[in-house]
Amino acid sequence: MRNAFYAQSGGVTAVINASAAGVIETARAHRNRIGKVYAGRNGIIGALTEDLIDTSKEPARAISALKHTPAGAFGSCRYKLKGLEESRAQYERLIEVFRAHDIGYFFYNGGNDSADTCLKVAQIAKKLGYPLTAVHVPKTVDNDLPITDNCPGFGSVAKYVATSMREAAFDVASMAKTSTKVFVLEVMGRHAGWITAAVGMAEDAQTPIPLVLLFPEVAFDEAKFLAAVEAKVKSAGYCCVGVSEGLLNAEGKLMAEAGTRDAFGHAQLGGVGPMIAGIVKDKLNLKYHWAVADYLQRAARHLASKTDAEQSYAVGRAAVLMALAGRNAVMPAITRVSDRPYRWKITEAPLEKVANVEKMLPKDFIARDGFGITEKARRYLAPLIRGEDPPPYKDGLPQYVRLKNVAVQKKLAAEFKV
Amino acid sequence: MRNAFYAQSGGVTAVINASAAGVIETARAHRNRIGKVYAGRNGIIGALTEDLIDTSKEPARAISALKHTPAGAFGSCRYKLKGLEESRAQYERLIEVFRAHDIGYFFYNGGNDSADTCLKVAQIAKKLGYPLTAVHVPKTVDNDLPITDNCPGFGSVAKYVATSMREAAFDVASMAKTSTKVFVLEVMGRHAGWITAAVGMAEDAQTPIPLVLLFPEVAFDEAKFLAAVEAKVKSAGYCCVGVSEGLLNAEGKLMAEAGTRDAFGHAQLGGVGPMIAGIVKDKLNLKYHWAVADYLQRAARHLASKTDAEQSYAVGRAAVLMALAGRNAVMPAITRVSDRPYRWKITEAPLEKVANVEKMLPKDFIARDGFGITEKARRYLAPLIRGEDPPPYKDGLPQYVRLKNVAVQKKLAAEFKV
Repeated sequence: MRNAFYAQSGGVTAVINASAAGVIETARAHRNRIGKVYAGRNGIIGALTEDLIDTSKEPARAISALKHTPAGAFGSCRYKLKGLEESRAQYERLIEVFRAHDIGYFFYNGGNDSADTCLKVAQIAKKLGYPLTAVHVPKTVDNDLPITDNCPGFGSVAKYVATSMREAAFDVASMAKTSTKVFVLEVMGRHAGWITAAVGMAEDAQTPIPLVLLFPEVAFDEAKFLAAVEAKVKSAGYCCVGVSEGLLNAEGKLMAEAGTRDAFGHAQLGGVGPMIAGIVKDKLNLKYHWAVADYLQRAARHLASKTDAEQSYAVGRAAVLMALAGRNAVMPAITRVSDRPYRWKITEAPLEKVANVEKMLPKDFIARDGFGITEKARRYLAPLIRGEDPPPYKDGLPQYVRLKNVAVQKKLAAEFKV
Repeated sequence: MRNAFYAQSGGVTAVINASAAGVIETARAHRNRIGKVYAGRNGIIGALTEDLIDTSKEPARAISALKHTPAGAFGSCRYKLKGLEESRAQYERLIEVFRAHDIGYFFYNGGNDSADTCLKVAQIAKKLGYPLTAVHVPKTVDNDLPITDNCPGFGSVAKYVATSMREAAFDVASMAKTSTKVFVLEVMGRHAGWITAAVGMAEDAQTPIPLVLLFPEVAFDEAKFLAAVEAKVKSAGYCCVGVSEGLLNAEGKLMAEAGTRDAFGHAQLGGVGPMIAGIVKDKLNLKYHWAVADYLQRAARHLASKTDAEQSYAVGRAAVLMALAGRNAVMPAITRVSDRPYRWKITEAPLEKVANVEKMLPKDFIARDGFGITEKARRYLAPLIRGEDPPPYKDGLPQYVRLKNVAVQKKLAAEFKV
């Protein structure tokens, strides 16, 4: 009976802790076959530095509360392991730490990079003759993992941006007569426009909203954009713009880095929203407001999608069941069985087919004029934002759990620099 | 039996429509004494241009749905009437329109400016011998009306910013090891730091968060600010900064307008968040993220405070009851009876004491170091954010009502330019 290791990787989400709960609760349910679940403090860095957290010190109610607690309860990190030869010392160190703590199961919860790391850990373990079952647990608000129909974390961001834009649109509609006519909301999604597309869900047949979306897939054309905004303001009295932080200009350069710098002279992402608002002001002389949701969108557990929360738990649970079934170097994927009614199931994806593959937004999800979403996109997105799963509230605020995160006693003498 | 006029004024809120519902439902309950409720399309402009909406065309369920619908259902406007002599033509026109439509009750839903307008309308009516009962219905996210303990609209923004900062803090805490160490959230409140103070509610004894607040009441001192941030990062590993859009520098100039311009060379509010983040980056060389919530914070009906929603309805209802009791030139105010348990009642405030008086954040609500809130502030704020009152959801999104807003037939020949 060997122990398990679990770590969170990369940008966190509103529901990644639900996957952690899925892993830990399922491991606990199989305590005849899995010993303890050790979590990496701050992700894979915790494994490299032998800074492990003993999750068995947490009561069942704390683990259960992870299902409604955003962000990474054990800490995450941005730390990319490279190729097996290039990062050989790191991979060997991982195995050394796993051996010291009798870890037989490796669960790595992240996106593209971590799928690659998980695969490489499986490979090095085999190479070194160390028995290890490595399973990747999918997570990314960017929704860009292949094979899986959607990625845990995305549905909640999608629900947040659609709801926020709908609410802001009601506000702007009230104010447009004498004040704000154009509202710009900047959203995440650096390479693929999944989140931008989700902004499009703000409107539906009962709630039409004059929306203009700026996808990272569609090079910014100022003249066409201004014409689209002007047309909406003319017909509806106002216009709401959803813009991806990753919007590119005609030369393929990030708008947020394209010449115009922020107030401090730095080029940095997270400024394309005010930039677009400024263009509207300069060229159309319309009153505007802009918002940049930034971390608010991916941390908003109070508005999580129930579909997303359930699927996040399910992939954590499935990862443990796959590991117990001896499935190595795989990832539980979400397979859509039907749109209406929405039905899904967990299937198994080999990590070779997941690692380093980015799933882009299909071309036919973007409307012909480049500023909206198609019916096909709506059909895909609709079930992912469905259902509410509010956290418990106390004194008016969501009650999120903070774990004790008790350290496991170190067994290795050597320090390891990361 | 005479008709009533109701209009929404200035920036809208998540719950101003609850006040509209309070007015309309209460008037309907007294249909033996009040005829129809006419709403001004786009606020007072609707009255001046005789563009009235017949709310009697809306079914009861639509009016009831206003209780959970954000923003201004009839449209609002930023249009300030000046002194009685200066804006004489406007005031006389209002009375002319009221006379044409037999309006005996004037309900004006807004902040300081509209309280002043409401008072002046009462005065001019008296002067012209036109029988009119004018009652102001309080509303402002800025929470700066006097006499009333708090302003409808504020509690929901307070709940939103506290929740959002708490959620973002969980995110930053997860990422701080290798990535973001400082998160900056810019919030509304141009002159008074009520909303900034509410950010402080993100933390409590169970959920400590290393917060630094930048109030409009405390001149920005870069050195002290950087020292505070550095200390938090050192002790907690990260720091969350809540900054008011109205932050001033030592010379009393708006930071957002003080020399440093935005990317387009414009000075405009709504850029102090990224500016503060830039200072952190330049001087401390720490990774940062920033968010500007803008309209999202005041439109977020999905996260409204139940206390706020109830009080917003109550002031609308009370306004009608006061008018029926013949009380003229008054405003229903919220009086706090006790903190714990929280008890409140509606009292009557004379408009002379409300108009043009700004209630500032008490000095003893701000911590000695200028970067936090005191226990007294917490005691004041706690009940205002309490309770949840979620809207109905359909297909994963809040269902907000859009009224038909049927126009009342015009009776006056003359056009009136606004």
